[in-house]
Amino acid sequence: MKEKKASESLTVMTEIVLPNDTNTFGNLMGGRLMYWMDIAAAISAHKHCNAPVVTASVDNISFEYPIKLGNVVHIEAKVSRAFNTSMEVHLKVWGEDLTKKYKYKSNEAYYTFVALDPHGKSKIVPQLAPETDEEKKLFDGALRRRQLRLILGGKLKPDEATELKALFFKE
Amino acid sequence: MKEKKASESLTVMTEIVLPNDTNTFGNLMGGRLMYWMDIAAAISAHKHCNAPVVTASVDNISFEYPIKLGNVVHIEAKVSRAFNTSMEVHLKVWGEDLTKKYKYKSNEAYYTFVALDPHGKSKIVPQLAPETDEEKKLFDGALRRRQLRLILGGKLKPDEATELKALFFKE
Amino acid sequence: MKEKKASESLTVMTEIVLPNDTNTFGNLMGGRLMYWMDIAAAISAHKHCNAPVVTASVDNISFEYPIKLGNVVHIEAKVSRAFNTSMEVHLKVWGEDLTKKYKYKSNEAYYTFVALDPHGKSKIVPQLAPETDEEKKLFDGALRRRQLRLILGGKLKPDEATELKALFFKE
Amino acid sequence: MKEKKASESLTVMTEIVLPNDTNTFGNLMGGRLMYWMDIAAAISAHKHCNAPVVTASVDNISFEYPIKLGNVVHIEAKVSRAFNTSMEVHLKVWGEDLTKKYKYKSNEAYYTFVALDPHGKSKIVPQLAPETDEEKKLFDGALRRRQLRLILGGKLKPDEATELKALFFKE
Amino acid sequence: MKEKKASESLTVMTEIVLPNDTNTFGNLMGGRLMYWMDIAAAISAHKHCNAPVVTASVDNISFEYPIKLGNVVHIEAKVSRAFNTSMEVHLKVWGEDLTKKYKYKSNEAYYTFVALDPHGKSKIVPQLAPETDEEKKLFDGALRRRQLRLILGGKLKPDEATELKALFFKE
Amino acid sequence: MKEKKASESLTVMTEIVLPNDTNTFGNLMGGRLMYWMDIAAAISAHKHCNAPVVTASVDNISFEYPIKLGNVVHIEAKVSRAFNTSMEVHLKVWGEDLTKKYKYKSNEAYYTFVALDPHGKSKIVPQLAPETDEEKKLFDGALRRRQLRLILGGKLKPDEATELKALFFKE
Repeated sequence: MKEKKASESLTVMTEIVLPNDTNTFGNLMGGRLMYWMDIAAAISAHKHCNAPVVTASVDNISFEYPIKLGNVVHIEAKVSRAFNTSMEVHLKVWGEDLTKKYKYKSNEAYYTFVALDPHGKSKIVPQLAPETDEEKKLFDGALRRRQLRLILGGKLKPDEATELKALFFKE
Repeated sequence: MKEKKASESLTVMTEIVLPNDTNTFGNLMGGRLMYWMDIAAAISAHKHCNAPVVTASVDNISFEYPIKLGNVVHIEAKVSRAFNTSMEVHLKVWGEDLTKKYKYKSNEAYYTFVALDPHGKSKIVPQLAPETDEEKKLFDGALRRRQLRLILGGKLKPDEATELKALFFKE
Repeated sequence: MKEKKASESLTVMTEIVLPNDTNTFGNLMGGRLMYWMDIAAAISAHKHCNAPVVTASVDNISFEYPIKLGNVVHIEAKVSRAFNTSMEVHLKVWGEDLTKKYKYKSNEAYYTFVALDPHGKSKIVPQLAPETDEEKKLFDGALRRRQLRLILGGKLKPDEATELKALFFKE
Repeated sequence: MKEKKASESLTVMTEIVLPNDTNTFGNLMGGRLMYWMDIAAAISAHKHCNAPVVTASVDNISFEYPIKLGNVVHIEAKVSRAFNTSMEVHLKVWGEDLTKKYKYKSNEAYYTFVALDPHGKSKIVPQLAPETDEEKKLFDGALRRRQLRLILGGKLKPDEATELKALFFKE
Repeated sequence: MKEKKASESLTVMTEIVLPNDTNTFGNLMGGRLMYWMDIAAAISAHKHCNAPVVTASVDNISFEYPIKLGNVVHIEAKVSRAFNTSMEVHLKVWGEDLTKKYKYKSNEAYYTFVALDPHGKSKIVPQLAPETDEEKKLFDGALRRRQLRLILGGKLKPDEATELKALFFKE
Repeated sequence: MKEKKASESLTVMTEIVLPNDTNTFGNLMGGRLMYWMDIAAAISAHKHCNAPVVTASVDNISFEYPIKLGNVVHIEAKVSRAFNTSMEVHLKVWGEDLTKKYKYKSNEAYYTFVALDPHGKSKIVPQLAPETDEEKKLFDGALRRRQLRLILGGKLKPDEATELKALFFKE
C-alpha cells in the first residue's frame, strides 16, 4: 500500500454562524463547532484512506475566543499520522469578522478515525509521508498523543508510555 | 456563597437517532453526539451556578460502541467540581435498542464551562459538595484532569503538576 | 405476557429553547414543543412494549405559560395505561429559567401509540401495573379519556360511554 | 371592528416528507406533522386578526393513515370562529402519493390561538362571518368544542356546558 | 399520453421566515428561498407527470424586495410547458407582513425538471394544455427560454435559436 | 478605494450529502445545493467589500451530474467583477465519491450581491483586479452577463446591450 502525502487529505470548510448556532450571548456554541469539525475531519480521513471512516476519539479541545453571530468559521483539517487502521487528523479553527477585517484563532484539535471495509470491519490504511516542517512536527507528536489517548482510555500503563514520558515530563 | 450538591445539577437528556444524525453505515456521527453532550453539560453547569455559561474545554473523548439509527441516546450530566469561575461537568452516554432490550455504554466525558455575568465577564461560582462515593472520586480526580488540561493548553509546566504526576505516573 | 410497571417506561427529556424554536415574541412555538413531546412519549411507549410504535392520537393540550428563549424545557413521559395494542402516555412539561431560578408548569398531555410488529401490523402489548397513587389515578382516568377519544373520533356513541358519563357528568 | 370572512384566513401549506421527518417504518412522525400544522394554523389566525398570535390549545387529534416518505403533505387551515381575544382554526390534512396518484385523508384538527398586542397582552379580534354550509357548521360546533376545552382545562363545570350536553350527550 | 391542464399542477406553499433563515439584517437569505422554491416546483412537476423528478436547471432569478423575519412567504408553482422528458415550472413568490397588511412581490422564476422512471432513466411526460391567457403567454415564451438555456449551456448555437432571436433581439 | 485581487475573495466550502439533503433517488436536491452556494458566494462577496451583502440575483444554473448521498460537495467561490455597489461571484461545484476516487463537475454559476451600509442602503465597493487568464476571462464576460441580467429583468432594451450582442450573437 503506497504512502500518501499529508497535503492530499487537506480539507477546507467555511461556514457562517447563524442564529440557531448561538447561545444567549450570540456566541457560537462549542457543540455546534465540534459537529462541523467532525465533518471536516471525517472528510479528510476519508480522502486519505478512500474508505468510510468512523470517529474513534477526540483529544482535549480548548476554546480560546468565542466566534460571534454572523462571523465566518474557517476549518482546516489534514491527516497528521496514520497508524494501522486508524488516522489522526489535525484541525485548525479560525473565526473571522469580515466587516471589521479581524481574523482570530479559535482552537486547534486532533480527531482520530478508524477506516471500515464494506462489512463494517476495521481496515488497513496507507501510511502518511509528511513533507513540510509543520507536518513533520505533527507526525512526530502523534505518537505521544496516541500514548496519552491509550492511557486515558485505560489501555496502556503510564510506565509503558516511553515517548510521552520522555517529552511530556522531561527528566 | 453557599456550596451546592452534585445532585442539584443532574441533567438527563434522551434523544432518538434520526436519519440525518447518521453516517453511511447508519451509525450516529460523533460530532452530532458531542453537540447533544454540549447542550446537556451546559444545562448542568447553568443549574449549578445560576448564570449563563460558555464551553471552555472538552477533555479527551473515546467512542466505544456506535449508536445505531433508531436507537435511543441517554445522556447524564452532573457537575463534578467547581473551581473559581469554572465548573467541570462529568457526562455518561449510553445507547439503547428498545426493541432488542439492549443497553450499552457509548462513552464518558468531561466538559468544562465558565460562568458569565450579564456583561460577559467570568463570574465566581459556588463550590461543589460531593456526597456519594462516585461523586467524591470524580471530585478528587478533577484536580489531576485540570492540571492535564493546563499542561495541554501550555499554561502549566509538567513539573508543577504535582497531583497529576503523583497519580498519573505513580512512582 | 408479563405486566410492566409504569416506572419502567419513565422517559426524561431536557432541551434548550433556541432562536429557531421561537416566535417573534421570543417564546417557544407550540408546534415545536409538541414535536419534542411526541419524541419523548414515543420513547416511553417503545420502552413499555419493546416494539416500534406510531402516534395514534393526541388529547387536548392547553399551553399555560410560554417558555422563553434560552430557558430549559423539561419533559417527563410515562405510560399511564395499556390497552390491547395501544398505550396511553402521560406527559408533564415544565419550563425553567436557570438564571432567575424560576420553574413553571407549561402543560400536561396524553399521547396514544400503537405497537407494530416487523410487518407494520398492530401488536399485543403488556398490561400496565400502576404502583403510586398518581399512577393509579392516571390508570383509572385512562378509560374515560379513551371513551372521549372514541366519541370524538366517531367510533363510539356518547350513550355507550358509561365511565365517561358517570365521572364526567356526575349525576 | 369589522367582521371578517372565513375565506380571508385560508392558508394552504404543501410539504414533502423528507428522511428526517420519518420513523423507522418510513412514516411521517406525528410530532413533525403537528409542528407544520401549528405554523399553518398560526398564519391563518394571524391573517384573521392582523396581530401576532400564540398557540393556546390544540384539540384531540387522531392520526388515521400514515403519510409515507417522499409523499406530499397538504394542509388547509381556516379560522372557524372568533371569540373575544381568541380564534379557533380548523385544519384538514391529506397525504398524497403523486406517483401512484393516490390522495388520502390524514386527519382533521382544531388549534386555538390568542392575539397579542405589541406589549404581549391579549387583544380583541374581529368576529367571524361564516358563508358556506361547511363554515357555518364549523362555526356552530365551535361553541361545544370550546366548552369541552374549558371542562378539560378545569375552567368550566360539566353541568354549565349547556350546548355541549345538549348535542354531545343527547337526552 | 393524454395532455394535462396547467391548473392540475398548481402547488401553493406557505412558510414563515424564522431566525435561522435570515442574514444579519433580519432578511430572508436568497439561498433559503431558492430551497423552498425548488421543493414547490418539484411537487408541481411531479403532479404533472406522476413520476419522480430531478432539478435540471434554474433560470435567472432576480430578488426584488427582501422578505423580513416573521413575515410570510407565499410560493405558487405551475407547469408552464412540457417538452419531451422535461417540464418548465413557473413560480411566483410574495412576501407578506400580516400585521401591517402589506403584501409585496419578491420574484418570479422558472425551474426545469426531468422526469425519471424507476431505474433513474429520463421518461416521456404528458404535454401541457394551457387555458388562461397568462398560461398561454407562459407556454409561448417557454420555447425562447429553452433556447436561451441551451445557448447558455453550450448546447445550441446562437444562430439556431430562431424564436429567441426573433423575439429577444427584434430585428 | 483600493482595487482588490480576485484571489482575496476565494472561498472554499466542503460539505457531505446527508439523508435529509436527498430526494427519493438518493441524490442531492437542487435547492439544497443552491442554499450552500448562496452561503459560499455571500462570504466571498463579503470578503471583497468588507460589508454585509444581500443576494440580488442568480444566473441560469444547469445541474449536470447528480451528487449522491454520502458524497462530498466542493464549492469554490470568487468575485469575478465588481460594479458600482454590486459584485458578481463565480462559483464552481464538484461532487466527489471519496471511496471510489471519482470527482465530477456538478455545475458552474454566477450569483450577484449588493453591499449594504449599516443603515441597509447600498454602498460603493472596491473594483476588482483580475490576475490569472481565467480571472480575466470571467472579468470580461461579466459585462455581457450583466446586460443579459438587465434585459431579463426588464431594465435594459436588447438593442442597447452592445457587448452581449457582439459576443452572444456573433455577426
